[in-house]
Amino acid sequence: MQNLRIPGPTPCPEDVLEAMGRQMVNHRGPEFASLLTDVTEKLKRLFKTQSDVFLLTASGTGGLEAAVVNMLSPGDVVLSVSIGVFGHRFAAIASQFGAQVIPLNFEWGQAAEIDAIRQALRDNPKIKAVLVTHNETSTGVTNDLKAISALVKEFDKLLVVDAISSLGSIELPVDEWRCDVTVTGSQKGWMVPPGMAMVAVGREAWEANSRATMPRFYWDFAKAKSYLEKGQTPWTPVLSIVFAFSVALDKMLTEGLDSIIARHARIAQMTRDGIKELGLSLFAEESHASNTVTSVAASGGLDTKILVKIMREEHGIVLGGGQQTMAGKIFRIGHLGWVNEDDIAQVLAALKTALPQAGFRSGS
Amino acid sequence: MQNLRIPGPTPCPEDVLEAMGRQMVNHRGPEFASLLTDVTEKLKRLFKTQSDVFLLTASGTGGLEAAVVNMLSPGDVVLSVSIGVFGHRFAAIASQFGAQVIPLNFEWGQAAEIDAIRQALRDNPKIKAVLVTHNETSTGVTNDLKAISALVKEFDKLLVVDAISSLGSIELPVDEWRCDVTVTGSQKGWMVPPGMAMVAVGREAWEANSRATMPRFYWDFAKAKSYLEKGQTPWTPVLSIVFAFSVALDKMLTEGLDSIIARHARIAQMTRDGIKELGLSLFAEESHASNTVTSVAASGGLDTKILVKIMREEHGIVLGGGQQTMAGKIFRIGHLGWVNEDDIAQVLAALKTALPQAGFRSGS
Repeated sequence: MQNLRIPGPTPCPEDVLEAMGRQMVNHRGPEFASLLTDVTEKLKRLFKTQSDVFLLTASGTGGLEAAVVNMLSPGDVVLSVSIGVFGHRFAAIASQFGAQVIPLNFEWGQAAEIDAIRQALRDNPKIKAVLVTHNETSTGVTNDLKAISALVKEFDKLLVVDAISSLGSIELPVDEWRCDVTVTGSQKGWMVPPGMAMVAVGREAWEANSRATMPRFYWDFAKAKSYLEKGQTPWTPVLSIVFAFSVALDKMLTEGLDSIIARHARIAQMTRDGIKELGLSLFAEESHASNTVTSVAASGGLDTKILVKIMREEHGIVLGGGQQTMAGKIFRIGHLGWVNEDDIAQVLAALKTALPQAGFRSGS
Repeated sequence: MQNLRIPGPTPCPEDVLEAMGRQMVNHRGPEFASLLTDVTEKLKRLFKTQSDVFLLTASGTGGLEAAVVNMLSPGDVVLSVSIGVFGHRFAAIASQFGAQVIPLNFEWGQAAEIDAIRQALRDNPKIKAVLVTHNETSTGVTNDLKAISALVKEFDKLLVVDAISSLGSIELPVDEWRCDVTVTGSQKGWMVPPGMAMVAVGREAWEANSRATMPRFYWDFAKAKSYLEKGQTPWTPVLSIVFAFSVALDKMLTEGLDSIIARHARIAQMTRDGIKELGLSLFAEESHASNTVTSVAASGGLDTKILVKIMREEHGIVLGGGQQTMAGKIFRIGHLGWVNEDDIAQVLAALKTALPQAGFRSGS
């Protein structure tokens, strides 16, 4: 079996995959209503929220688009706090739908600086909302969302969070950190195949929603809410993913959120330690290194493209390359969801063999 | 096992469900690239098109939204040919995104009249596109798309087709009938669970796309095209549904499209004949009755809500009720995808017992 070590889709446990194979039911019938209600309630516990949580049949990017069009009107000024590919994507969506985006971009590999955000909020009193990536998969960096949230709320702005690769794996108590809209995706820490975005919509977000005029139909949170009240989704949902969630969420609640978060921290530390022992360097600043994905700098003559190929073909281990401008500059190891120490030990052992074959000379 | 006789989601064959349970792979890797290319090519054969076909992670409604925002600009005049709930939905999407919608609504249960469409096209020379539902699931009526297409092209307008519940089950040669954008959904005749919309985008559609200014990001056909060229989708796709398609499409190609269409016609006729033998009346005008779903009028004291409940609880048969204003006025029997004569015989036999229990008196 492949050791799939990209930052999503992540491998799914056997019983979750079995649930994917369940026969179809009526999505407007009583069995599905009870399943949807149950899955939604369990998600709320893991989001640590009393707010509404909706399941959208979409990739994570669809969830980001949903957050934008439900919160904003064309012309609204938004601050985009970006530390990589996904931060840029969030800004591009807002811009595409007519928001006036103020970009606040930080060097890739670094986390967002709180003081710079404070300055931007001071300089631009018209800012209505702040878009921020909690965990940037492209660089392997986790922002200090707690501090960012405190600041955004000090200025009384809406906080819209891309938590696609963090929620359920890295600490993010949605209500306590006053996230207004929080987006995640099934194929990350949730141990479920891709196809569903989950969004939490808080009280202030509903107020913004009632005034937001960006065009929306498929993504409309108000429709999602009115249908959820009768145990349905507005449009035919990706039923199999809901079946899979009903199994995966029970596993997560059995392990316990604190244990899951601690496991991710422990395995990430093991990954970083192992990478350094191999003579490689971390790409992300270590104080903000992600607990769901580790980015490794190409150094010492390493050809990351060849490395990824050797690891896949000779070791059955699938690593991530660098995206966009990061291509060739880093490789990435995903360690989120259904992952344990053995999976990482296997990666580190294989790297030991593969690195020299891919041109790497330690200390060079 | 339940006999799921709603017009989608439809039951899936055992081997399709098994494919749903496959372990995840890298959606940016070589295995998936080859799978995506293969599935896309097979879909093109069943669409009878040489045009681009894209897989969107979405419900069918997402596919309709994608068609609208990729073809139109705010202010564009569109003719909405509607014969039921889904026709109205298509119009509502266009209107929500700023199109000027001219509604051409026909009585529910009837097909669209060609002469009325001609008159509307004559009266409104500014019309840019015509939105039409090929098969209206809410009323069980199939429009004469071939004639509508000939007319729309006589006036040189764009033809945007909701073929969600027809393509793959009812004749629709996309290129021959000059459909510019054609939308369908995995959970209908394709024998695959819900979660994916498939869209065909023709040459004239690309010209319209290059000028269309409605905001789009997630649904952007141009992005879908550039990623498909490297065997990818722009956003993480619902992998399991693609796995399922690779099995389902082989089954469809083995049976052969002509045989599939003939089977749907034969089973639909069996359903209509059986319904009439039970003393019930068809809701749809029979000359345009759908071969994927049969709508039955509530007559002779029949309480459709009670009927649907008895059929589900006592016979394990799940029927559709009426949607929106049709609630209580009709019930619906889905017969598309993985369906054979035995499934319908079981429905008819159970109806014989259940109808009197639900208040129906034949001939009353």
